[in-house]
Amino acid sequence: VSAPGTPRRALLTGATGFIGSHLLAHLQAAGWPVAVLARPSAAELLSQMPAIAKVYTYTGATTEVIAAMAEHKPEVVFHLSSHFLAAHDSTQIESLISSNVLFGTQLLEAMKAAGVTALVNAGTSWQNYAGDTYNPVNLYAATKQAFEDIVAYYTQTSGLRAVTLRLYDSYGEGDQRRKLLRLLLECLRTGEPMGMSPGDQVMDLVHVDDICRAFLHAAELALEMPAGASVYAVSSGERRTLKQVVATLEEAAGQKLAIEFGVRAHRPREVMVPWVGPPLPGWVPTISLLDGFKRLIRDRT
Amino acid sequence: VSAPGTPRRALLTGATGFIGSHLLAHLQAAGWPVAVLARPSAAELLSQMPAIAKVYTYTGATTEVIAAMAEHKPEVVFHLSSHFLAAHDSTQIESLISSNVLFGTQLLEAMKAAGVTALVNAGTSWQNYAGDTYNPVNLYAATKQAFEDIVAYYTQTSGLRAVTLRLYDSYGEGDQRRKLLRLLLECLRTGEPMGMSPGDQVMDLVHVDDICRAFLHAAELALEMPAGASVYAVSSGERRTLKQVVATLEEAAGQKLAIEFGVRAHRPREVMVPWVGPPLPGWVPTISLLDGFKRLIRDRT
Repeated sequence: VSAPGTPRRALLTGATGFIGSHLLAHLQAAGWPVAVLARPSAAELLSQMPAIAKVYTYTGATTEVIAAMAEHKPEVVFHLSSHFLAAHDSTQIESLISSNVLFGTQLLEAMKAAGVTALVNAGTSWQNYAGDTYNPVNLYAATKQAFEDIVAYYTQTSGLRAVTLRLYDSYGEGDQRRKLLRLLLECLRTGEPMGMSPGDQVMDLVHVDDICRAFLHAAELALEMPAGASVYAVSSGERRTLKQVVATLEEAAGQKLAIEFGVRAHRPREVMVPWVGPPLPGWVPTISLLDGFKRLIRDRT
Repeated sequence: VSAPGTPRRALLTGATGFIGSHLLAHLQAAGWPVAVLARPSAAELLSQMPAIAKVYTYTGATTEVIAAMAEHKPEVVFHLSSHFLAAHDSTQIESLISSNVLFGTQLLEAMKAAGVTALVNAGTSWQNYAGDTYNPVNLYAATKQAFEDIVAYYTQTSGLRAVTLRLYDSYGEGDQRRKLLRLLLECLRTGEPMGMSPGDQVMDLVHVDDICRAFLHAAELALEMPAGASVYAVSSGERRTLKQVVATLEEAAGQKLAIEFGVRAHRPREVMVPWVGPPLPGWVPTISLLDGFKRLIRDRT
């Protein structure tokens, strides 16, 4: 067994996503040769990312995944690609299942064929609505759970060692997603008032650099554990209501935000208190919410 | 609430399968108007089945399922279609996921759109290898479990009432599947010797008529229960080793079979003792193994 942090050959899915792109940079900074498996639509974005060992193209076929795995022979697979939808409509069923269940199954089948056994998989705390062992907030979360059932099969039959990290809210520099933090930063910049829900829902915001360190740490765990599947929560340890999050951003900015709380309703199945899951052993977040927000603001100015 | 056995409008998937075709006949005998949702490849077989209310065609699109559900407006959906594989190879991944996860999800989405809330779903005791709560014998069983995770989402969000029947081995008249009983009946007819495993694995063989009665009973439960998912085992109550099964068939036939036990190895992850699951309340099997085998033999001669 190598010492923690030894560079390994990695295969990464979801490399153009927010967390995936940061993880690629973290792995490369640690000296890992990283190949990427991605849809053709990602090619342009990937061409702007430096030093990728190889980009393998996925258009839907199992054979493509098998060929990529056989050629690159990674020691660890990081599976971050997914189709994220807070709410779906009926036109999105096929895409959700093929992105979140089929593609992952093809990846596992290819790992089996190539004798690759270490997987780090991105799950979501939304699999655990109301703190339940399993209760999906939305169909997206249900497809993540469905994939974990497929993982279980390969742990039983091909020596797969899988670590699933269930993520909460993420934030950090370069985040292009239209999520809360981006709206708040816009509000900060323009001074325009913004209507929000009552703001009493508890959030668990984790800086993307801490999340990437969790993924690297999970890779070491996957490499050293016996065949099986482990699930860990990647929590900031700083749970704050939305109102407190806004106050922390105001503190970081030295400026008030024109938020009108209570103007909007909570969305259906809003998570009021996030799940408390088993912590990833040996990993602790290092970036406080206040420091992380200061970095965000510096990055924007 | 209607009395048990009231005819209802039903939509059936898997109507050309062994259990599905028997269930269609049972439902029709009970006066249910049954529509069928099936792939174009099933059209010829379906054309030989009498009195189907309507055959809806499924070529893969969610819109087809939504349109069928909206037009037929069933009170109960029986979801029996699946791609069964005792062992898969890598060319079958896409078919397994699309048949066993995607199609079912489309069905649930269409039920939600049409306000249809009662589902009876076919699962397998192979989801419970070694008696575990979840431990799939094969990838087929893992996809069945994955679908149950999707079911859970709809029970939480659209009032779905789902009963999953986990089935053991089935047998009965008209069985064209190349499974154990057909091989044994061939052996009986030809007198040719047949090599088998040591024969000490325990089997739970249920006659298809008893299984169909379980599906009808499960429909009543689904119609009367609150939103949620229930899982029941459909067991014969007569567990026999393979050797004892052969002896019972010999008794039914009044003739010895030329079986050579111990010539073949058990297959990987052979189920030696089937899972014991929660029994379907209010249902009991009525056909003993000996009587069922006598019917099989009469049917063949």
